[in-house]
Amino acid sequence: MRQPLKRIQTALKHRKLDCLLVTQPENRRYLSGYTVGDHSINESAGVLLIPATGEPYLLTDSRFELQAQREATGFRVKLYPRGLFPLLQKMLKSLKVKRLAFESHYFLHSTSLRLAKLADKIRIELVPLTGLVEELRLIKDEQELAKIERAVQLNELIFQEIFQGLAPGQTEKEVALKIENAMRHKGAERPSFETIVAGGPNAALPHAVPGDRPLMAGEPIIIDMGLVLDGYCSDMTRTVVLGTPDEKTVALFRLVRKAQLAGLKALKAGVSGMVVDKVARQVIERAGLGERFGHGLGHGVGLNVHEGPSLNYRNRKQLAPGMVVTVEPGIYVPDWGGIRLENMAVVTADGCRELNRDTTFLDL
Amino acid sequence: MRQPLKRIQTALKHRKLDCLLVTQPENRRYLSGYTVGDHSINESAGVLLIPATGEPYLLTDSRFELQAQREATGFRVKLYPRGLFPLLQKMLKSLKVKRLAFESHYFLHSTSLRLAKLADKIRIELVPLTGLVEELRLIKDEQELAKIERAVQLNELIFQEIFQGLAPGQTEKEVALKIENAMRHKGAERPSFETIVAGGPNAALPHAVPGDRPLMAGEPIIIDMGLVLDGYCSDMTRTVVLGTPDEKTVALFRLVRKAQLAGLKALKAGVSGMVVDKVARQVIERAGLGERFGHGLGHGVGLNVHEGPSLNYRNRKQLAPGMVVTVEPGIYVPDWGGIRLENMAVVTADGCRELNRDTTFLDL
Repeated sequence: MRQPLKRIQTALKHRKLDCLLVTQPENRRYLSGYTVGDHSINESAGVLLIPATGEPYLLTDSRFELQAQREATGFRVKLYPRGLFPLLQKMLKSLKVKRLAFESHYFLHSTSLRLAKLADKIRIELVPLTGLVEELRLIKDEQELAKIERAVQLNELIFQEIFQGLAPGQTEKEVALKIENAMRHKGAERPSFETIVAGGPNAALPHAVPGDRPLMAGEPIIIDMGLVLDGYCSDMTRTVVLGTPDEKTVALFRLVRKAQLAGLKALKAGVSGMVVDKVARQVIERAGLGERFGHGLGHGVGLNVHEGPSLNYRNRKQLAPGMVVTVEPGIYVPDWGGIRLENMAVVTADGCRELNRDTTFLDL
Repeated sequence: MRQPLKRIQTALKHRKLDCLLVTQPENRRYLSGYTVGDHSINESAGVLLIPATGEPYLLTDSRFELQAQREATGFRVKLYPRGLFPLLQKMLKSLKVKRLAFESHYFLHSTSLRLAKLADKIRIELVPLTGLVEELRLIKDEQELAKIERAVQLNELIFQEIFQGLAPGQTEKEVALKIENAMRHKGAERPSFETIVAGGPNAALPHAVPGDRPLMAGEPIIIDMGLVLDGYCSDMTRTVVLGTPDEKTVALFRLVRKAQLAGLKALKAGVSGMVVDKVARQVIERAGLGERFGHGLGHGVGLNVHEGPSLNYRNRKQLAPGMVVTVEPGIYVPDWGGIRLENMAVVTADGCRELNRDTTFLDL
C-alpha cells in the first residue's frame, strides 16, 4: 500500500473518523495515483472514499473507468451511473460508517447540503476537515523531488530558448504564447499558472497580465513561468533587459538578488517561514524600499503550484527537510516597472539545495 | 441602471432578502460588467454585494481596482486590503442587512463556515440560493445575441482554416494546439473548453482527450471546439473524413444529421427541452442505435459554455424566445469511432434561428 495512504488511515483512526471523502484533485492524485484533474469544482473526475481500515475506493463515472483502473492501483474502482450520492449512500451503509470526514476546502456549499441530507437519512455524523492530506504533502519524498527537479529543468530549458529569441517589438502576449506552446511541444502537461510576461510599467504589478504592448530595449522585463510535468509543478521568474540596463535598473537588480541570496542562506530545517521572509525582506528594507516589496517571499510547490509552506510574516511553523519552496523577492515601482527573481529550493537539515541552475541576469 | 440588476433587486424584495452576495464569476460579470474571471474558486477576483434597494457594491482587492472602476459602472468599488470578511462585516452592518443571500453553488463549504460565524456575530440570517442570477441569464437580449453570433462566426472561420490544412499523419494534440493558437491570434479571450480532436476509436468517447495518435485517411475525426469572445461562448462540433468515407460512415453521418435536423425543427418557444431531445433521439432509436447516443441533445450557451436550458430527458420546462442552445446528437461505436454534429440556435416564438452557417460534412 502507498505510504501516504497508510499515514492517512492512521490519522483517521487517531481522530476516531471511520472514513474520509477526498474531493480535492491533487489530494486524490497524491493518495491514489489517479492522474485525471477536475475540469472545475462542478465537474469532478471522481472522489476517493478511504476507510480508516481496509481497502480504499475510487468512485468515478464510466468516462474515466479505464484510466482509473490502470492508475489507481490498490484502489477498488466503483462507477456511479446515476451520480455520486446514490452510490455513496450504499457504500457508507455497507462500510458501516458512523463518522465521515470530508474536505471542507474543496466542497461546494450546495453539495454539502445534499451530503448533510444524506447523513441525516442514514444517521451518520459529518466532520468537515481542511488540510489533512495537504499536511502530508508538505514533505516530498525522493520520487517527488526527482519529478519536481525534472519540471524545473524543463522550465529552464524553455526559458533559455525563449530568451535567445527575445527581441524589442515582440508583444508580451506573443512571448507568453510562445512559452506556453513550447511547454506543450516539449511534453509538459500544461502551464502551472498563466504565464506572466510584463515589461515597463506593467511589470510594476506583481500579477501582471500579458498585454499588446511591445517590449522595449533597456526596460526590465519580468518573465514568470511554470509548468506541470508528471503532475509536479515548477515556478520560476527571471527579469531580463534587452540592450543595456541603466544604473537604476542595475542597482535594483543587485538589491533583489542580494535579498534572494539572503533568503536562500537563511532557509533550513527548524527555521520558520516567517524568519526566512524577514531575513530577505530586511535587505530591501535597509535600502529604504520595504514598501515596494508588497508580497510574501515564497510559497511551497508540489502537485499544486501554490501550496504550503508559506515564507511570509504569518507562518510561524518550523520548516522541515523535504519541503520545497520558492524564494522570490521583488521590487515594484509604479509607472517605472519591477524586478522579481524566483528560484526553487528543497529544505535540508542544515540548509537548502537549490533546484535552479539558470543564472540569466541573476548576477548583473 | 443595468436591466438585469433591476430585476435581481426586484427578486430580492420579493423574497424578503435584504442583500445578495454574488460570487459566481459569470454572474458577477453579467450584473456588473466587470470582466475579470476567477483563477479558481479559491482565488476570487471580487464579489458583488447587492442590496434590495440602493446602490450596489463591487468588493475586490487592489490588483483589480482600476479595472473594476472602469468596467463596473453603477457599482461602488470597495477594496479589502485584509481580505473579504472584515470589509463584509462593516458593510453588512452599515447597510443594516438582516437577511443575506449567498450563492450556495459557488461557495466553498469552508468559506460558508466563516460566513456563518460572521452572521452569528452580527446577528443576521443567511439564505443559501442557487440559480437566481442564472435564471435571468437564460434569456439573451439583442446585445448578448450579437456577441454570441460573433463568437460563432469566429469559431467557424478558425474551423475552416484548420480544416483546409488537415492531413493524415498530424496528431490529435497537434491539431488541437493549432486550433487554440488560432483562437488566441484572432482575438478570442480563450477556448471555452478544452478542444477535442479525436480520430478512430478515440472518437467513440464523447469527452475524448486529444492524444498522440496520428489522424488517418478514411476514419471519422471529431473536432469539437469553442471559444470565448467578449465574454460569450461558442460551441461547435464537426466530424470530418480525410479521403473517402466508407458506406458505414456515410450512413451514420446521414443518420446523425437527420436527427440534428429533426431536433432543430422541433426547437421553439413553448416546447420543453425534453421534447426536443426526444424528437431527435427517436431518429437514432428507430435505426436501432439508441444505445449509441448516450448523452443529452444539447445545452444552453452564454457567458458559460454549459448553462441552462438543457435539452435532455430531465428538462420539463418550456423553452422561451431568446434562449440559445446547442443541438448535438452523436453516435459512438466502441472500437470503431464516433460521429457528432453540433450547431447553435436561438429559440424564437415560432421556431429557431440557427447561428451556424458552416456546412462542412453536414450533408454528406
